[in-house]
Amino acid sequence: MTTVPVDRSYAGELDAADPLAGFRDRFARDEESLIYLDGNSLGPLPRATEARIAEVVGREWGAGLVRSWHDWIGLPGQVGDLLGEHLIGAGPGQVAVCDSTTVNLYKLAVAALDARPGRSVIVTDDDNFPTDRYVLQGIAAQRGCELRMIGTDLDQGLAAGALREALDERTALVSLSHVAYRSGALADMTQITKIVHEAGALALWDLCHSAGAVPVELDASGADLAVGCTYKYLNAGPGAPAFLYVRRELQPGLRQPVWGWFGQRRQFDMGPAYDPAPGIGQFLTGTPQIIGTVAVQEGVRLLAEAGIARLRAKGLALTGYLIGLADAWLAPLGAAVASPRPDERRGSHVTLAHPEAWRISQALIAEGVIGDYRTPDRLRLGPAPAYTRFADVWDALDIMRQIMINRTYLNVQPPRSVVT
Amino acid sequence: MTTVPVDRSYAGELDAADPLAGFRDRFARDEESLIYLDGNSLGPLPRATEARIAEVVGREWGAGLVRSWHDWIGLPGQVGDLLGEHLIGAGPGQVAVCDSTTVNLYKLAVAALDARPGRSVIVTDDDNFPTDRYVLQGIAAQRGCELRMIGTDLDQGLAAGALREALDERTALVSLSHVAYRSGALADMTQITKIVHEAGALALWDLCHSAGAVPVELDASGADLAVGCTYKYLNAGPGAPAFLYVRRELQPGLRQPVWGWFGQRRQFDMGPAYDPAPGIGQFLTGTPQIIGTVAVQEGVRLLAEAGIARLRAKGLALTGYLIGLADAWLAPLGAAVASPRPDERRGSHVTLAHPEAWRISQALIAEGVIGDYRTPDRLRLGPAPAYTRFADVWDALDIMRQIMINRTYLNVQPPRSVVT
Repeated sequence: MTTVPVDRSYAGELDAADPLAGFRDRFARDEESLIYLDGNSLGPLPRATEARIAEVVGREWGAGLVRSWHDWIGLPGQVGDLLGEHLIGAGPGQVAVCDSTTVNLYKLAVAALDARPGRSVIVTDDDNFPTDRYVLQGIAAQRGCELRMIGTDLDQGLAAGALREALDERTALVSLSHVAYRSGALADMTQITKIVHEAGALALWDLCHSAGAVPVELDASGADLAVGCTYKYLNAGPGAPAFLYVRRELQPGLRQPVWGWFGQRRQFDMGPAYDPAPGIGQFLTGTPQIIGTVAVQEGVRLLAEAGIARLRAKGLALTGYLIGLADAWLAPLGAAVASPRPDERRGSHVTLAHPEAWRISQALIAEGVIGDYRTPDRLRLGPAPAYTRFADVWDALDIMRQIMINRTYLNVQPPRSVVT
Repeated sequence: MTTVPVDRSYAGELDAADPLAGFRDRFARDEESLIYLDGNSLGPLPRATEARIAEVVGREWGAGLVRSWHDWIGLPGQVGDLLGEHLIGAGPGQVAVCDSTTVNLYKLAVAALDARPGRSVIVTDDDNFPTDRYVLQGIAAQRGCELRMIGTDLDQGLAAGALREALDERTALVSLSHVAYRSGALADMTQITKIVHEAGALALWDLCHSAGAVPVELDASGADLAVGCTYKYLNAGPGAPAFLYVRRELQPGLRQPVWGWFGQRRQFDMGPAYDPAPGIGQFLTGTPQIIGTVAVQEGVRLLAEAGIARLRAKGLALTGYLIGLADAWLAPLGAAVASPRPDERRGSHVTLAHPEAWRISQALIAEGVIGDYRTPDRLRLGPAPAYTRFADVWDALDIMRQIMINRTYLNVQPPRSVVT
């Protein structure tokens, strides 16, 4: 049980002292009263991104036409380096912005298996994000590998002991999420990577729910490979391109399976044989989506300006405050905190468990509070530090308290809507 | 030798009689004097697309936030159906807009090989577009298949006889471009697909250089599979998502290798096992890029309004006129037409061969005429029918004639710039 002052004035004090308060106005805001706690699904639109997309469309594409490829062609690596430097702890030449998380995961997982001949087991956990589990299932099916699923606590995330037991000399690859999509449980990347390496396997991290919210130290942690999306905390827009990381020392020994012309060494020679580009470039495939890539650039720039340390500090304060209010108000009404409580084990969203979680999520939306439902009985609330106020957290939980006290969620009828 | 009237007034007469002339103003135009003959690489910006992207960014993403996924999630199939109906001859439920051409080619080629057990030969031609050749090389290397390359005439494209000789009972897949990227040679999809089927193989067509320029009849031709990009004649912008086609009857028997959550039957159940969606949905992978997908929708709508039959008629008139002027003016100066001359064998761009093609292409750009260079000694000129005037063709060839007569291209020094 976490105890916080429950008077709304305390939220006001926290907001007044927030060094990141000014960043809220860097985002487009259409409804002043809307409380958006779903940036862990789709981040809001940075004003700079709106202007930059208009510029890229009108001036670079519209006026520059094909000539603009001169500047565009380097973007996947340039934006990857920017992301690596400011948000995920990766030195230059190891990150590229390209494809989707799903496709990048496929590429890197296949490359990792090929790099561990004689080993035929892939390990993940049974609460990993669906696309991760499905991609690995597909690869295992195609290659006749075993996909070993570690049983995971839905609230607390992966236990290091369970991981250690799942590994053996047949393990080629361990693919895990840094922050669990459902509970927000944060894994210890350094500790777990070490366990993976002790078994002789490669570690592939999914950073979808951590990049931009939690400090990530890919280089320092020893991580081998990583992927992640950009439309959550990086605020790059619906379906913006994902990123991938391949540790520099591993790059010469890895070969990804989709041999496209953007991964070719001298692309415009258009020569007869595929000859992979040196470095991270070999992990590109087809023509990169430029509008999405510049949106990633703007999103990263904004967070870099805020600073990941300050974002993390505020993120922990917001989620800690949310947990305290939930303990005080919602636990007695049957909605239990289903996320880790220690700061070092928590990402930037908090999950509550309640049998009517879906109807409550819909009732909240009707009251102007956007979180989201996750199976089987979970409500996710993501107070992203770049734009969420402590008062928003207070208001959201107060509204939820009223909904639960008055049982207005019982009026919710239609099937659940589609929310990613 | 094609003969056309060489006086500029003839171009004016053709423009005056052009039923599509009004479509030129549907595209953004920054420099009135620029002659853009490279829409076969990157199509120009439709004004409607500029407005639509601003709307999607500002209103749907900015104001609608995650709620807009309710409308976005169906776009890959909806835009695919629109494209299928108006431009590539595919009935509903067989086309999806997703990923890149490279990734789609990989997905469908692997699926095709799996569907032809006991056969281990992939056939393509040695002048196929680089990414097609590289992707197939990669698949062949990973699966221990043979990749058989048909020798192709750089000017005239694939000969049916050569194809027939390359096929046997071991052939699983034949992957070819409908319009050759270098010469613009147009393949007879119906005839070639029939030859492929007689050998018991599957036919996978790359429509990058034909969709939106040439009538494509996927259903009627018997084609099994197809992929294509949207940033050339479909004018959807740099790196906009590609499309894929899978014939309805084949869908239940094919399984693509990248098992992502957007290909899952009940995606938001997030269940334990991958269970592919029925129909074309199973060929999706990760989260679709929404801005690019709506740009495809706008691009297709514009061409649908013009009508593919009228676009084709004007495209042939433009390229025929270009060939006639090239014969009259440029052939005597050493630049020979390196594209097929019969209408039924030609796509929507014309290629000229000259040992100094690269320097000539740069000198043309300096004079405000944008075409592009292709190895080894080719200059591509693509007069896209939606916005190119006959006077543009006359002016471009007149400028090129002056460049060649005065040998001003000899002043071009720097290394060639990057143009896709």
